[in-house]
Amino acid sequence: MTTIAFIGLGNMGIGMASNLAKAGHDVRALDISEDAVARAVEVGCKGCKDTSEAVSEADIVVTMLPAGKHVRMVYGDEGGVFDHAKQGALFIDSSTIDVATARAVISTAEHKGFHMIDAPVSGGVGGAAAGTLTFMCGGTKEAFEQAKPYLDIMGKNVFHAGDAGNGQVAKIANNMLLGIHMIGTCEAFNLAEKLGLDAQTFYDISSTASGQNWSMTSYCPAPGPVASAPSNNDYQPGFAAAMMLKDLRLAQDAATTARAATPLGTQAEALYSLMEASGKDDLDFSGIMKLINGTI
Amino acid sequence: MTTIAFIGLGNMGIGMASNLAKAGHDVRALDISEDAVARAVEVGCKGCKDTSEAVSEADIVVTMLPAGKHVRMVYGDEGGVFDHAKQGALFIDSSTIDVATARAVISTAEHKGFHMIDAPVSGGVGGAAAGTLTFMCGGTKEAFEQAKPYLDIMGKNVFHAGDAGNGQVAKIANNMLLGIHMIGTCEAFNLAEKLGLDAQTFYDISSTASGQNWSMTSYCPAPGPVASAPSNNDYQPGFAAAMMLKDLRLAQDAATTARAATPLGTQAEALYSLMEASGKDDLDFSGIMKLINGTI
Repeated sequence: MTTIAFIGLGNMGIGMASNLAKAGHDVRALDISEDAVARAVEVGCKGCKDTSEAVSEADIVVTMLPAGKHVRMVYGDEGGVFDHAKQGALFIDSSTIDVATARAVISTAEHKGFHMIDAPVSGGVGGAAAGTLTFMCGGTKEAFEQAKPYLDIMGKNVFHAGDAGNGQVAKIANNMLLGIHMIGTCEAFNLAEKLGLDAQTFYDISSTASGQNWSMTSYCPAPGPVASAPSNNDYQPGFAAAMMLKDLRLAQDAATTARAATPLGTQAEALYSLMEASGKDDLDFSGIMKLINGTI
Repeated sequence: MTTIAFIGLGNMGIGMASNLAKAGHDVRALDISEDAVARAVEVGCKGCKDTSEAVSEADIVVTMLPAGKHVRMVYGDEGGVFDHAKQGALFIDSSTIDVATARAVISTAEHKGFHMIDAPVSGGVGGAAAGTLTFMCGGTKEAFEQAKPYLDIMGKNVFHAGDAGNGQVAKIANNMLLGIHMIGTCEAFNLAEKLGLDAQTFYDISSTASGQNWSMTSYCPAPGPVASAPSNNDYQPGFAAAMMLKDLRLAQDAATTARAATPLGTQAEALYSLMEASGKDDLDFSGIMKLINGTI
């Protein structure tokens, strides 16, 4: 039994913390929302009132926070994780945040004698609850190996993407590509349909040909061909368009910093911004079909 | 043994005609290039001097031509296929052309008492030579069933996409999507690399996650991960960027006619046009990586 502090008990964090507790670990749960802490207690965690109580006895600290600024605050602010954690503790930040912040916080942690990896996830709320997340990790091999048994409890696929920050890089590059081929798939189905070719027939051809992609064959944005897809459930998420837009904006920030040209990534960010502007970004990200076919 | 006229003996047509001849059919070969006809004779066809000689005894006429205007001319001009073909003959147009022309020519053929399908292909010169093309067919069920045994000789996958013109629709919608996810894949690999994540590691993660697409896993534009990909052979085609651009332009024409929004398809056409403008459109279409990473 390991003592694990878990900070950030939103829709994702609560499922992850719950799975660590179910596996028999002593999970110390902390969130700015008292309701969130109460829910964590219901699923077997110990509720904590402040950072000191959560982390001072923990061998591992897991954080699952909305953005880079929260990660900086939770770790680096006075009275934060750095001030209260045990020497040699391992930090796992599973937040999806900007690459620069991830690298800066890990660098500070290492200078203070801690081990730390960035370990953003994919798989959504369902994957968090089911313990089937994919973890993309950046950091030293030692820190990764130390974290892996705990990531294996919360996830199904655990990748070491290289040095600090590379977990974030893998996630935003992957999700930028996902956003692009989701929109492209919507455009192709809509074009086909407007020219008289129905969705199932186009699916039967393109899914076995060079048009094949994950958005089509695992998550088809045209209702019909893939039964489990949100398109068959009025585009209820799933993975909300607002979350895709967050990732596309992180990708654009990183691309600007790295001087990487992303002509379609830029356009994908603009199109999901139109979905946000229309107030429909609470739909699943495959609901971009409604922007493309004019039913938004 | 069926008598088959084959008109259009370019890089694709010669392989297709050769496979029909090898299967024991009486193939009457016609092209505006005498050299092309001579090559067809070498692979077992009978060389013809004009449309009358090629089609007057043919049960089936196959055409493989560059663009819609050539298809109109070869079938509809005075002294063309319509004037010389046997009553009840079957026409198979495997050219990739605009949807409107395909539908117009098939309609005229049917009014004149012929059967006709549009049957554009994918699979490239290699597939034509090996008899492993994919055919996407539009037309009546009867015409499709009549054509299928011959398409099976030239191809591996033969799809009936619905009414006349739907073969073209399936092809351009599929290839528009292919162009989009190829560019997106290049952007993702380039972004990852500029941020310190190498191609093989990104491939290992994204190819098993939601970024997966045909351009990545069958034709990876980053050298390394997929041994058979043109990226490992200085981007020699393969499927040339110029041919992708032709298909993207057909998709844009069709989208304009159908009032279908294709924001990424439009951008893909613009990016392959930049490749054309740089004089590098003879590279494989995955060579768009060189535009994205600045090595063009």
